[in-house]
Amino acid sequence: MKFRVDINCDMGEGYGHFTVGNDAEIMPYITSANVACGFHAGEPLTIAQTIALAKKHGVAVGAHPGYPDLMGFGRREMKLTYEEAKSYIIYQIGALQGFAKIFDITLQHVKPHGAMYNTALKDVELARAITEAVLELDPRLIIFAPPKSALAKTATYAGLRVAHEFFADRAYNSDGSLVSRKVAGAVIEEPKKVVERTVKAVKEGVVESVNGELVELGTVHTICIHGDTPSASKLAQALRESLARSNIEVKPVSQFIQ
Amino acid sequence: MKFRVDINCDMGEGYGHFTVGNDAEIMPYITSANVACGFHAGEPLTIAQTIALAKKHGVAVGAHPGYPDLMGFGRREMKLTYEEAKSYIIYQIGALQGFAKIFDITLQHVKPHGAMYNTALKDVELARAITEAVLELDPRLIIFAPPKSALAKTATYAGLRVAHEFFADRAYNSDGSLVSRKVAGAVIEEPKKVVERTVKAVKEGVVESVNGELVELGTVHTICIHGDTPSASKLAQALRESLARSNIEVKPVSQFIQ
Amino acid sequence: MKFRVDINCDMGEGYGHFTVGNDAEIMPYITSANVACGFHAGEPLTIAQTIALAKKHGVAVGAHPGYPDLMGFGRREMKLTYEEAKSYIIYQIGALQGFAKIFDITLQHVKPHGAMYNTALKDVELARAITEAVLELDPRLIIFAPPKSALAKTATYAGLRVAHEFFADRAYNSDGSLVSRKVAGAVIEEPKKVVERTVKAVKEGVVESVNGELVELGTVHTICIHGDTPSASKLAQALRESLARSNIEVKPVSQFIQ
Amino acid sequence: MKFRVDINCDMGEGYGHFTVGNDAEIMPYITSANVACGFHAGEPLTIAQTIALAKKHGVAVGAHPGYPDLMGFGRREMKLTYEEAKSYIIYQIGALQGFAKIFDITLQHVKPHGAMYNTALKDVELARAITEAVLELDPRLIIFAPPKSALAKTATYAGLRVAHEFFADRAYNSDGSLVSRKVAGAVIEEPKKVVERTVKAVKEGVVESVNGELVELGTVHTICIHGDTPSASKLAQALRESLARSNIEVKPVSQFIQ
Repeated sequence: MKFRVDINCDMGEGYGHFTVGNDAEIMPYITSANVACGFHAGEPLTIAQTIALAKKHGVAVGAHPGYPDLMGFGRREMKLTYEEAKSYIIYQIGALQGFAKIFDITLQHVKPHGAMYNTALKDVELARAITEAVLELDPRLIIFAPPKSALAKTATYAGLRVAHEFFADRAYNSDGSLVSRKVAGAVIEEPKKVVERTVKAVKEGVVESVNGELVELGTVHTICIHGDTPSASKLAQALRESLARSNIEVKPVSQFIQ
Repeated sequence: MKFRVDINCDMGEGYGHFTVGNDAEIMPYITSANVACGFHAGEPLTIAQTIALAKKHGVAVGAHPGYPDLMGFGRREMKLTYEEAKSYIIYQIGALQGFAKIFDITLQHVKPHGAMYNTALKDVELARAITEAVLELDPRLIIFAPPKSALAKTATYAGLRVAHEFFADRAYNSDGSLVSRKVAGAVIEEPKKVVERTVKAVKEGVVESVNGELVELGTVHTICIHGDTPSASKLAQALRESLARSNIEVKPVSQFIQ
Repeated sequence: MKFRVDINCDMGEGYGHFTVGNDAEIMPYITSANVACGFHAGEPLTIAQTIALAKKHGVAVGAHPGYPDLMGFGRREMKLTYEEAKSYIIYQIGALQGFAKIFDITLQHVKPHGAMYNTALKDVELARAITEAVLELDPRLIIFAPPKSALAKTATYAGLRVAHEFFADRAYNSDGSLVSRKVAGAVIEEPKKVVERTVKAVKEGVVESVNGELVELGTVHTICIHGDTPSASKLAQALRESLARSNIEVKPVSQFIQ
Repeated sequence: MKFRVDINCDMGEGYGHFTVGNDAEIMPYITSANVACGFHAGEPLTIAQTIALAKKHGVAVGAHPGYPDLMGFGRREMKLTYEEAKSYIIYQIGALQGFAKIFDITLQHVKPHGAMYNTALKDVELARAITEAVLELDPRLIIFAPPKSALAKTATYAGLRVAHEFFADRAYNSDGSLVSRKVAGAVIEEPKKVVERTVKAVKEGVVESVNGELVELGTVHTICIHGDTPSASKLAQALRESLARSNIEVKPVSQFIQ
């Protein structure tokens, strides 16, 4: 059997003079870039530079819309109405589509950022706002979400393709949710362990929870890695190489998802 | 001979709870709406509502990008590099294109706002940034600009269609520039006078300057009116009706410009 | 017995070119102005103009800090940490104190805005962040809050003076909370009814709830009126005059609260 | 003869999740921190953390107000009116004074940021707006400016104390202005050279221009260093130690300026 998986990472999360992460170092090892769209990070010049970099490395580009909260980096829950949420997402994806046109690429996917992502996993109204916005803008856009989440279910039901995400460096609870970052051990830093979990997740569709139970993941389409740690590019490189050695082909999810 | 002209007005220049102008009252009398894109005014929900209103009245929609200066309503000159300006314009037009897709319309035109507009009339680099952004996003977009301006020349040279604007309620200097708002008499408030000037401008291609000299305007494609005065909708109505009585057909510029 | 009460209203809630309410018309009838501080509304020039107007009319000035959400006018709940909330409040009150110094006045009070106000009525952590910020900036500042709210209790316990608010034009539930604006009848628009309720609240310390039960208000120190309705200034005038006729002296709360 | 000088550096130029520079590494070697106030950088939490860090190291704190241009880091010229500029400066200094009160310190100085600084060196109206704002807020605040600049002259004339700045790592033109960053050699990176120039500037009041001519600096009160290069803290340390070895006492300018 042939295994294939995508590696995604948040990119372009600076804002003008403010830079975040090491995009140039990580880009060579990923296959999908989630590009910040200006609300929680990512002003226009940063967006342009990030897409240019992604294109150079053959990395697929997706929109990474967030709450309008630059001060809090989109990590704080904001109670929006359905109309507000839908319009904010249209605005951000639309802006990114503009740059995609300029660089002669097509957006591959949409992955909400931070608190918007976390809320959309449980809040059906927000999940629906995201789904409707994407459906009306471009139904070929793939939604990134964990399996069984409200976002995954809503998008699937509406006929959108959903790429199931596996969080390579995050501990899982037995119910399939992530262990809160506030809990010790929530982030797995040992590269070897990250790689092993990932190969197992891709090949067997399971991950061991913090309680030692096996969590069913189903098909894993894309692996989420984080770019804001000093060792992020080393981890990305290790992961990429290990997947290759394990006969798992790494490429943009749009090339194999159905 | 058959005369045709477009009437354009800035629309959607509120921002969430902040509302500006009387869009609902003016929309029935115009044929092109310049919709603020979020930088000087116009957050996503306002954009959506404005496009919905325009569509309801058969009014063509254009992007009205501005400087990133909400505090100053985009009316203060900002020195941007070519790359900054181009990326800011791509972002704003792209966002508006997103909403256009949602409402199943096509953007008709681009008219820069406030200080960005005024600067682009003289500054070739900014004119080029706007032109390049539009050319790469959608070469069917029409640029709104006064004849002979740097923006009109640059856009025409690049192959874009340019709709020449006439400012119905603004006094002209003999060189074709507008009398500064700081000068008394810069804004013409008497409806009868506004209407007479406009009919003459459309039919004869001339306007009388503050010094009594005739200014050559060439073909006038679109008449700019302002929506932020209490009497704006009355003026718009009077203008619309007078043009009809003068056998000047009023319709979106894309329906007759070549 | 001698009755005294303050009338407060949100003021300066525009933002540059964006104007909100009719400050100039309402200011003559109120005694305390809650001035927006730049986060949900109120950029520096608006703040300066609003304080100048208040001073001209002998109206006491207070800070009206809100969530950093210009797009949503501070009306959307945002989950902030204690440190974030405290620093945001220090920043906003500090900025306003700067203008108070320039205009040679002293800030009288602090009233949080919108969602920050509503949350502080129940959320002890936010109430504590507000209280601590005020205590450390200037312990003579009076907190505006409804009686029995978390904010009133926390501030009182810390030794701050608390002015109990009565909402003249809002219907009350039997537990003393306001009827949600989403419910019909939540806003009382009939001036006569607003005036009668207010006189009763000031003189007898009670208000009739939507269910016909009497709600104990204790001493009412300040009456909140809203400035964003077309008839706001008429209502303010009617209220002011009726209170005078009812032998209730209307003046800034700092002149009589203990 | 006894020599004394201050070392100042821009601090707190991050914005929430966005971090800039290495404040913690540089703070031990400077004596005055120019703290960003929220317009070009520096949201409230960053301000609080920066002042706490400065206080811990006995570093004097000043306000570093800028243009309202987060997207451009305040480095782009904006044409403001006198009233806009004055109110923006009051707002920013006022906010910082709030935090100063909380941390029980007194602001020492005001140094405008980026384009606002550069413009105030030549533009008398902006220099006057800054001067008036400071004069009315706290006349003990010291203005940081190069000698002979419009800002230095205006502030001195108004009775404010002005600390003359020397730019340790920037090449000078023969007229005393800085060589534009766009010109090769504008920034001096060799620590030894930076130190030698600085000692000469402090002890002899002169610097050699790029043309080899001696530029008269008068008394140098404060040395500006930059914190956004990787080697900034090493340079700061080298400078601090060399000044000590050269019998130049390094301390906050308020402790010796008259």
